[in-house]
Amino acid sequence: MSGAWFGEGRAVRLCEVGPRDGLQAESAFVPTADKIALVNALARAGVSKIEVTAFVSPAAIPALRDADAVMQGIERRAEVVYSALVPNVRGAARAIDARADELNLVMSASESHNLSNLRMTRAQSFASLRQVAAMAHGAGVAVNVSLSCAFGCPMEGNVAIEDVLAWCERYARELGASGVTLCDTTGMAYPAQVSAATRAFLERLPGTALTLHFHDTRGMGLANVLAAIDAGARNFDTSIGGLGGCPYAPGASGNVCTEEIAHALDLCGYACGLDLPGLVAQARSLEPLIGHAVASQIVKAGLCSELHPRPHDFEAIRRRALARA
Amino acid sequence: MSGAWFGEGRAVRLCEVGPRDGLQAESAFVPTADKIALVNALARAGVSKIEVTAFVSPAAIPALRDADAVMQGIERRAEVVYSALVPNVRGAARAIDARADELNLVMSASESHNLSNLRMTRAQSFASLRQVAAMAHGAGVAVNVSLSCAFGCPMEGNVAIEDVLAWCERYARELGASGVTLCDTTGMAYPAQVSAATRAFLERLPGTALTLHFHDTRGMGLANVLAAIDAGARNFDTSIGGLGGCPYAPGASGNVCTEEIAHALDLCGYACGLDLPGLVAQARSLEPLIGHAVASQIVKAGLCSELHPRPHDFEAIRRRALARA
Repeated sequence: MSGAWFGEGRAVRLCEVGPRDGLQAESAFVPTADKIALVNALARAGVSKIEVTAFVSPAAIPALRDADAVMQGIERRAEVVYSALVPNVRGAARAIDARADELNLVMSASESHNLSNLRMTRAQSFASLRQVAAMAHGAGVAVNVSLSCAFGCPMEGNVAIEDVLAWCERYARELGASGVTLCDTTGMAYPAQVSAATRAFLERLPGTALTLHFHDTRGMGLANVLAAIDAGARNFDTSIGGLGGCPYAPGASGNVCTEEIAHALDLCGYACGLDLPGLVAQARSLEPLIGHAVASQIVKAGLCSELHPRPHDFEAIRRRALARA
Repeated sequence: MSGAWFGEGRAVRLCEVGPRDGLQAESAFVPTADKIALVNALARAGVSKIEVTAFVSPAAIPALRDADAVMQGIERRAEVVYSALVPNVRGAARAIDARADELNLVMSASESHNLSNLRMTRAQSFASLRQVAAMAHGAGVAVNVSLSCAFGCPMEGNVAIEDVLAWCERYARELGASGVTLCDTTGMAYPAQVSAATRAFLERLPGTALTLHFHDTRGMGLANVLAAIDAGARNFDTSIGGLGGCPYAPGASGNVCTEEIAHALDLCGYACGLDLPGLVAQARSLEPLIGHAVASQIVKAGLCSELHPRPHDFEAIRRRALARA
């Protein structure tokens, strides 16, 4: 029997990635003021960390071309970590200038995926991460590394957990990363694998904050979150409205959805410290901004606690039924 | 730590409900020959039981107006149970004539839902089930009862597990039902609740076959399956392609999807005895018959084992990267 089904008040922290990972995949440009309002509302709703934006080339990702203005324009709440993705030292300098609390660095556990997406070998990426980490430490800013394809590569298939852990150790020891995020970039992770990987990570790197980043591409998102919790994990990346798709599967789900995960964990008795109706309202408010419906099942179906009225002729139905008795 | 994440070769049986629960929700009439071909293909793919059709009034559910021809036209495999939903003695007589292996009877754990959907009080439904069960026993046909809203009612909210178990005991003792299906009709079940309910059922009714019927309406489908397995359940209703929606949440997911559940359980090491590529092919083949895309994430994204090619210019990317070193 598992303890994972019963939260019993244990804390789980959600890191909101919608403003970065979600919006960068949208063709619509969401106005800067709306992005700032979204980040502020998510912070008020209780998420522990927000990946606010990415300091990348405006030509590469025009949807986030206002990164500096967004990071500088948001309210700061002491209990929230405001993180930013940075691909290189140029981005790191911008993020530090804009007062990011944490720089999130990215590379892939798969050589094929790293070359295809970042146009570098993994060794080259690591050398670049080393420069960025040195700059962050010089500025007193925390470093997290997000490792893509940690649960499988869409081109190579299986990725050995030993290789994943070896990279994570280098991030902690050589880059001074305070946290590592294991990313299931294309929805290949499954509960048995997640359970084993989480346990192995926590045994090997007890001093490094572990975050899990799951995609619901094949319907395993929540099950993976619970398998990771059962193995000792407490931090999860989630995306408001389920924003963010999968380039390998057009139309399929991407990031696990903040309000779906929060709703399920809340029902099971976990303490996420989240304002669920507030999250749902934020998810709904995204639809006019991005020009289409969000993937969120909770937006479509409502919270379990939101009941429906009986049919308008319910009393007549009952009377007719009883008259037949 | 849970054993549920690791199947270790344990058997899990899927009962396919798409041909009945799924197709009855479609506006298109699927031709009789295609329904028969679907049932035969699902049986070949290894499902343990198939709810083939419903013997209801053709006026009430025109999509299943060919119930008799379908049930009489399918191949019979000795290892598969061919079940049929029957609402009353008239339907039971037709199902028995058509050689159904099992009659599936339905009522709701919620008085409001029973009255709204079946136009009877629960007491009236139970009296009708008693007549149907007597007819089935007389013909030597097994009886299963599917209890709707066993995990919550969209109008009443919580449904007490004690009430659910009291009904289940009456099905076993007074109706001679060999099996009971606890149905999460509108996707309100959550893992903690499922774990507790499954354990309570198995303790109270050790001689009655338990099946769980989950909807993925709020993204908890697979997690609920794993919570039930962890508590001792082994039989689950699933629907090919994820056919079947939710009348309370247009556009939201309905029944958990056969190939999604089978894929996840297979990865975790459970023995479902299923031909996964065969199931996916069947799910894909439904789309022209029903006139729209199926909900299945696996149809959209493929199995984890289906890899993607590297970019066509991958070697050039690698050469350019190495030249920079």
